Amino acid sequence: MISFESDYTEGAHPQILRRLAETNLEQLPGYGTDRYCDSAKTKIREACGTPDAQVWFISGGTQTNQLVIASVLRSYEGVIAAKTGHINAHEAGAIEYTGHKVMELPQHEGRLDAAEVRGLLETFHGDENHEHMVFPGMVYISHPTEYGTLYSKAELEALHAVCAEYQIPLYMDGARLAYGLMSRATDVTLQDIARLCDIFYIGGTKCGALLGEAVVFPKGNAPEHFLTLIKQHGALLAKGRAMGIQFDTLFTDGLYFELGKHAIDRAEELKQILREKGCVFFLNSPTNQQFIVLEDRQLAKLQEKIAVSFWEKPDENHTVVRLATSWATGKESLRALAEALE
Amino acid sequence: MISFESDYTEGAHPQILRRLAETNLEQLPGYGTDRYCDSAKTKIREACGTPDAQVWFISGGTQTNQLVIASVLRSYEGVIAAKTGHINAHEAGAIEYTGHKVMELPQHEGRLDAAEVRGLLETFHGDENHEHMVFPGMVYISHPTEYGTLYSKAELEALHAVCAEYQIPLYMDGARLAYGLMSRATDVTLQDIARLCDIFYIGGTKCGALLGEAVVFPKGNAPEHFLTLIKQHGALLAKGRAMGIQFDTLFTDGLYFELGKHAIDRAEELKQILREKGCVFFLNSPTNQQFIVLEDRQLAKLQEKIAVSFWEKPDENHTVVRLATSWATGKESLRALAEALE
Amino acid sequence: MISFESDYTEGAHPQILRRLAETNLEQLPGYGTDRYCDSAKTKIREACGTPDAQVWFISGGTQTNQLVIASVLRSYEGVIAAKTGHINAHEAGAIEYTGHKVMELPQHEGRLDAAEVRGLLETFHGDENHEHMVFPGMVYISHPTEYGTLYSKAELEALHAVCAEYQIPLYMDGARLAYGLMSRATDVTLQDIARLCDIFYIGGTKCGALLGEAVVFPKGNAPEHFLTLIKQHGALLAKGRAMGIQFDTLFTDGLYFELGKHAIDRAEELKQILREKGCVFFLNSPTNQQFIVLEDRQLAKLQEKIAVSFWEKPDENHTVVRLATSWATGKESLRALAEALE
Amino acid sequence: MISFESDYTEGAHPQILRRLAETNLEQLPGYGTDRYCDSAKTKIREACGTPDAQVWFISGGTQTNQLVIASVLRSYEGVIAAKTGHINAHEAGAIEYTGHKVMELPQHEGRLDAAEVRGLLETFHGDENHEHMVFPGMVYISHPTEYGTLYSKAELEALHAVCAEYQIPLYMDGARLAYGLMSRATDVTLQDIARLCDIFYIGGTKCGALLGEAVVFPKGNAPEHFLTLIKQHGALLAKGRAMGIQFDTLFTDGLYFELGKHAIDRAEELKQILREKGCVFFLNSPTNQQFIVLEDRQLAKLQEKIAVSFWEKPDENHTVVRLATSWATGKESLRALAEALE
Repeated sequence: MISFESDYTEGAHPQILRRLAETNLEQLPGYGTDRYCDSAKTKIREACGTPDAQVWFISGGTQTNQLVIASVLRSYEGVIAAKTGHINAHEAGAIEYTGHKVMELPQHEGRLDAAEVRGLLETFHGDENHEHMVFPGMVYISHPTEYGTLYSKAELEALHAVCAEYQIPLYMDGARLAYGLMSRATDVTLQDIARLCDIFYIGGTKCGALLGEAVVFPKGNAPEHFLTLIKQHGALLAKGRAMGIQFDTLFTDGLYFELGKHAIDRAEELKQILREKGCVFFLNSPTNQQFIVLEDRQLAKLQEKIAVSFWEKPDENHTVVRLATSWATGKESLRALAEALE
Repeated sequence: MISFESDYTEGAHPQILRRLAETNLEQLPGYGTDRYCDSAKTKIREACGTPDAQVWFISGGTQTNQLVIASVLRSYEGVIAAKTGHINAHEAGAIEYTGHKVMELPQHEGRLDAAEVRGLLETFHGDENHEHMVFPGMVYISHPTEYGTLYSKAELEALHAVCAEYQIPLYMDGARLAYGLMSRATDVTLQDIARLCDIFYIGGTKCGALLGEAVVFPKGNAPEHFLTLIKQHGALLAKGRAMGIQFDTLFTDGLYFELGKHAIDRAEELKQILREKGCVFFLNSPTNQQFIVLEDRQLAKLQEKIAVSFWEKPDENHTVVRLATSWATGKESLRALAEALE
Repeated sequence: MISFESDYTEGAHPQILRRLAETNLEQLPGYGTDRYCDSAKTKIREACGTPDAQVWFISGGTQTNQLVIASVLRSYEGVIAAKTGHINAHEAGAIEYTGHKVMELPQHEGRLDAAEVRGLLETFHGDENHEHMVFPGMVYISHPTEYGTLYSKAELEALHAVCAEYQIPLYMDGARLAYGLMSRATDVTLQDIARLCDIFYIGGTKCGALLGEAVVFPKGNAPEHFLTLIKQHGALLAKGRAMGIQFDTLFTDGLYFELGKHAIDRAEELKQILREKGCVFFLNSPTNQQFIVLEDRQLAKLQEKIAVSFWEKPDENHTVVRLATSWATGKESLRALAEALE
Repeated sequence: MISFESDYTEGAHPQILRRLAETNLEQLPGYGTDRYCDSAKTKIREACGTPDAQVWFISGGTQTNQLVIASVLRSYEGVIAAKTGHINAHEAGAIEYTGHKVMELPQHEGRLDAAEVRGLLETFHGDENHEHMVFPGMVYISHPTEYGTLYSKAELEALHAVCAEYQIPLYMDGARLAYGLMSRATDVTLQDIARLCDIFYIGGTKCGALLGEAVVFPKGNAPEHFLTLIKQHGALLAKGRAMGIQFDTLFTDGLYFELGKHAIDRAEELKQILREKGCVFFLNSPTNQQFIVLEDRQLAKLQEKIAVSFWEKPDENHTVVRLATSWATGKESLRALAEALE
């Protein structure tokens, strides 16, 4: 049985495991204050082109979103997100758990529309009763989105402009950022993101690490006493090295980008196979997640050999499923898929 | 200047003030344990036809909604509400502040649709990933709604059936319940509500009291240690008598219903005037809140003499405004309005 | 049966009820924006000698404490309080409910000791691991304390100095402030409090109002969008007039101070009676709450005629009880008590 | 420079890294549903002698404490802990962040006293006003405590009996459980813990894992939808295998106990050295954490060669420091320490 269910079906890139083993018996201070964390942060600052950036390592995406949003918003503020945004749909209410509303806007293949964001902000501030309402205090986007789609540079600039005008931060969830950056269809670089977003995180877990996400405050704009806030959220690992060494490895000699490129190359081959087999694409994704619509009978047959992810049911007889490639996807898996689709 | 802005522009019904004065120097125990609270609760139980009901008095509507919803939901649950539901739109995130998501469904002139509620529940439970999502744990409706509209008995029964099937409570916000019960267009009685809802509150503040709402758990189904929960929310008044005496008065000799009827009679006259003056109704409301669409120029002129509430702007040149009657609205106010509309 | 259980056994001072009745049919805007709220705020600013003060009316003490503390503290901060402080002991965890720790210090007849507060702050900031700990972010005192005792001006100045040095606000819970201000043993004026505290509230409920507390930010230092925060806590009454008119009355012609003086005069007479009857005082309180130690047999006999409040059990055969006077206590009640104590 | 600062200065036990590498390219389902997690759970159930136990893996201790306590307590409940309990002192308010009070009792070399716990519960339930107070809803202990001390079996039985009588759960924080179980001075086995505690966690991070703690609900008494609660807390790792494989390794062939024994053997040698060098012990700890009192001059000299942890300052010229051994401590480190202490 071969799995295309997700990009986290394997462990970590072997180079990461090697570095963990090599450094294993070094005695290092705890809580992210060791030299590998420092080194990783320096490399990330360089890759982002933001020498003043503050960087922190957090174990997972939901933890990161919850921590960042709860720490940055004021009590009376909520966060704007697309209906399909991860924080709105698939984090079990982690944001609301911290006291903040997720203010839903329509999704456009997973994306927010800058004009709609502006509309929400204008309507809010134009409403005579807005002091009885949740203040929009942040814009959340995922890039790639939950549908694998990407914002263009122009779209990011438009979102940045709205946020700047209303003086609220733009926050990007980059759980799969490696795959977004290496897409063949993107004009957005990591430096663009560091310039246009007020906060973002560089995904590790889904891009080759065993665990860990790197939150970046590119303008040195982290909330005061952020370490204490991390601790308060239960998100401070005693062995911070476990994430520092991984990110140090990922940002040495461009490994992070290389892993992204690998997955994209496999994804393009995957799309070619799906196209050849006459599969119907649910939408056009330029990254490592591909969504196709299958008849339920087809799906049952496919699943005898290949594991895929259930996404949604557009009608009684069809299912949308996701197939994902990753840094670990091999050519033989694609061949097996092609055969299974015969 | 005469105001139709809301149903809380005056103080309390004079009979209430009289009773407060008459009982003022009696020494009574605090925190709602006095005999007037007891008496009011008995009368409310009788009016509802639910001898086992538990009744509590809370100072305002948002406080009540926050307290009830936070106390009844489990951590992992959210509450379903219409987009225009008060808890979703105009309570400054009071529900999310307690850690729970408001799960938005479309509004139909302020109402939830039972089939859409069922759809949400079916989709949720049918989703293989639903353990990563907020569990729908309650249905919130307002009756009358924020647009003055009402559920029919059949619609309430349909909502009740969905909730019963999925074993989640149906909660009714009755901030303006008196006006709903006495509408000429309703087939819903207080006993129906007590039978079909798992929790509801009988609005005082907007129906003739100085402050206070009566929360009813008709089946004796209040959360354990609810008094402590009220205290924890800062919602336990030391002089509980201040609300007990008011509700005791409102539920003596049918005063509550009489006040509702008074407002409805005035509202019907108001509608007649608006119709005669050629006003465009935003929607058809059978209760004490009326919504009309005015050209901004018309509105400016009207506001020289009559205060109304801004509701929303459908386009650049028009405004939807609300005019409300109440237990206190006099005929002379209506005459003044008619003149102002000439 | 005559009650000395508390200072909230009666309704409101008759002058307050009269004003509520006189203004009852005036049409006023909601949510505390009416002219009576404005007038009351002006009078309070004058009484405090702080022309820039911001004043808000909140329905009860726990609500006020919860709202103020949650709004002023940052996520990573807690509030220092005496072990017996109301927020620590008798508010059902209302502070923790908003996410903040109450950092307990010993009580000295209900008071905090400034040197101990400084000790806590020094220890915290001197601890190399303090980033893993709750930051002390506010000092909470009650005046009078829960034992009826008072801070001297020197003690308040010492607390003020510690707070100023560590740049954290000093917050005073003045639920019974009228009685503290009119104590024969105090050298602290309302102006002193407004000068030495960063935030405080002037108690209404226990000092002659039906409900309501006036929160004062004497230096115009209220949190941004405090109205929205009030709403979010469910603490915004639609009929804000209900509190504005009461405070306007209390601060007209010195009524608030007069009511305080009345209770203090009665309390001094009460102490005289207790002394004459050989009662053992639990401590020496200069305000309206008196605490005595009774043998349980004595207590049972007393309670046949007089209601008092259980406070604590120092041993198996004795009970500490509280007797409170108020603005409403009459001479005949004292006579009845004296007789019951024969 | 050699460090005795903590038991988390090295990475993971080499056998763990080996297993991570061996299984690295296996495709496994996410979120802790893989076969290694299953296997680890089975082995833990066996080691505990509780076939019905539910086991979950969480990344760190504070996360675990926060999650368990918030999930098990009801809104109106708090958790009893010693003043020095980790949740009370060094988790940055993580428990209060979820809305619950930590109810402090005195510590006795880090331990709670069962009689004092009973006293608190009796006083609470005997207080006529207890409905205005936080309900004690759980007892938290750490074993070993923050001072390295242990509960005897009799002490655990006494705590168990109090909890059972008042029907509240006994929760043990076992961050360093391996060292407690292998102490030469203990009569408590893992089976005893599983029998006497309602919830506990088996520490991984400080006992040889790279990260991870195993929460055990020995009677199948996990809160409903615990997976969703984990997700809501941001504590659900996508690559659950990262913890499953580690615990599977630790509970294969008794590795967990072996690592505990290694640290204890080194700790006994450490104690012998400290004794020989005339060091003053702050208290008598039978586990891997040793606390000694040094003159500040001595300390400065020691720290030229050996890193130790600051604990507290008993007076101006002395400091209490902690020295910890671990599964990784070698004999040569002890020799270096002995030399540094000459």
